[in-house]
Amino acid sequence: MSEKPVVVAMMGDPCGVGPEVSLKALASEDLTDLCRPLLLGSTSAAQKTADACGIDVSLHPISTLEAARYEPGVIDVLDPGNLDPAHVEFGTPSAACGRAVVGGVRLATELGKAGRIQAWIMAPINSQAIRLAGMMAHLDDLQPPGSYVFRISGDLRVVPIAEHLAISEVPASVTRDAVFGLTRLVHETLEAWGLPAPRIGVAGLNPHAMGVQEEDEIKPAVEEARRAGIDATGPVSPDAVFRQCIEKRFDAVVSMYHDQGQIALKTAAFTGACSIFIGLPYLMLSIPHGSAYDIAGKGTAQHKSMLEALETAARLASGLGFIR
Amino acid sequence: MSEKPVVVAMMGDPCGVGPEVSLKALASEDLTDLCRPLLLGSTSAAQKTADACGIDVSLHPISTLEAARYEPGVIDVLDPGNLDPAHVEFGTPSAACGRAVVGGVRLATELGKAGRIQAWIMAPINSQAIRLAGMMAHLDDLQPPGSYVFRISGDLRVVPIAEHLAISEVPASVTRDAVFGLTRLVHETLEAWGLPAPRIGVAGLNPHAMGVQEEDEIKPAVEEARRAGIDATGPVSPDAVFRQCIEKRFDAVVSMYHDQGQIALKTAAFTGACSIFIGLPYLMLSIPHGSAYDIAGKGTAQHKSMLEALETAARLASGLGFIR
Repeated sequence: MSEKPVVVAMMGDPCGVGPEVSLKALASEDLTDLCRPLLLGSTSAAQKTADACGIDVSLHPISTLEAARYEPGVIDVLDPGNLDPAHVEFGTPSAACGRAVVGGVRLATELGKAGRIQAWIMAPINSQAIRLAGMMAHLDDLQPPGSYVFRISGDLRVVPIAEHLAISEVPASVTRDAVFGLTRLVHETLEAWGLPAPRIGVAGLNPHAMGVQEEDEIKPAVEEARRAGIDATGPVSPDAVFRQCIEKRFDAVVSMYHDQGQIALKTAAFTGACSIFIGLPYLMLSIPHGSAYDIAGKGTAQHKSMLEALETAARLASGLGFIR
Repeated sequence: MSEKPVVVAMMGDPCGVGPEVSLKALASEDLTDLCRPLLLGSTSAAQKTADACGIDVSLHPISTLEAARYEPGVIDVLDPGNLDPAHVEFGTPSAACGRAVVGGVRLATELGKAGRIQAWIMAPINSQAIRLAGMMAHLDDLQPPGSYVFRISGDLRVVPIAEHLAISEVPASVTRDAVFGLTRLVHETLEAWGLPAPRIGVAGLNPHAMGVQEEDEIKPAVEEARRAGIDATGPVSPDAVFRQCIEKRFDAVVSMYHDQGQIALKTAAFTGACSIFIGLPYLMLSIPHGSAYDIAGKGTAQHKSMLEALETAARLASGLGFIR
């Protein structure tokens, strides 16, 4: 038991469906076979959600990680004690809940950096509550510095060299260093996750991968990666590389800009989608649905995404590869 | 009968699978219900293909359109007389066949411009044969000047404001005039094809459709289109607009650059794909497979794409809308 990774569901915004999908997913019997799971967030918000949604679980509130018992059938709740339960009203954004979320993010990040947890999943947060809390200039700030977003949808896995750049700024961002650095990081990450000799497709930038950046930056980066023993292929035509990944020719694609991969991911729209921030000493995951205030506290939210994210985190942190 | 559009299959490269898929598709009984179909190309190449592939058809060679009889069970073959049959060897590119293809393209274009045919489909050509013929600097020259490429894959339909621009040249190409002009053309085209009040999604350029070009160019273009009575929506986030089209929220998407739409089309990869050059007084279509020299003359090529393209052309030229 002691070898299994500690995988944390951070409940997200207490007024949305985050606590509900976290509790339902953590109640899954099979999860304890893969990891030591626990909930991070307000115990009273969790209990209120369980009562409102009719979720039959036993909660074990703890204030330090050491107190966790990881017993099947009982959910350990690491409560930062940063939320007055009076502020939790389903479907209503509040500064108090926004502050609790930011506090939860910070605690999870600290525990991850210290190596005391191996992975954490961010349940849906609410942008309005975050704004009300006034602790974060922009939601993009939730992305840890130096990390990249590895997005999964079915067999399609994509990580871009940059996130929200304007298209006019994209060509200059495509440098040999950026492409090689990310290709190496993806290689090392996939190996650590349990994929021996991962095959990485590197997208081109321009139509049919024919342009200046392909010749001057991407080709040299791919060649450098191959010299370093990495199974990298590219630059591949951007309109072909994602389909090739879906067809299992590649284990992941390094893409040249945000929309290149996002268009592929969201158009294909497979089930089992999640995002993993890579380049950190721990795994941080997010799931693809929002806090859904309109159905919060009703017991009707689906917890499949959260459960798959927990399973994915547990498997990857253990070096067991992807779910399928 | 006289009201039905004349729809031409140009056989493409005689040494590839073009003649085979054309003959098989033109032999379809149902086609004459929709249009007056005929084959354009070398009669001897067509007969050689029919013999080699075991296709049971009767050919009626004609040298002028007026001689066509459009009889069920008999395929009229408009033969430009520009190919010596001695040059037709399955799977071998030749300058003679390249010249025959370019001649066929020119004849079909002339007939279309003169209003004597309403649509033509280009069967697969071979780039090596075209190069050997030395009559065309680049395959992109096959796109008629002033036309746009309207691509279809299932319910996803996309037309970009420009084709093969480098990404660095894309932002400057996104002008209010270009976006409005194409949106209006797509509106008029879809109406002519039989879609009353077509719904057009206009993609943004930048991530989440938030950027300078969205504010300065795309929004004003969409507003201008709406003032002109066009049901245009946008700028829509590029990673959402194609999925929305697949889910039938839009009849077509105006995209801002080649790969934006191509990534969506090729990643989704639905069946029934074809491309239509719009903005011309006739329809010109191409199908998504190549000349497949390796299986030419063997009778094993699938003709579904060509048949669907012929049916699509016949339906759209008649104002009957898309197949489904």
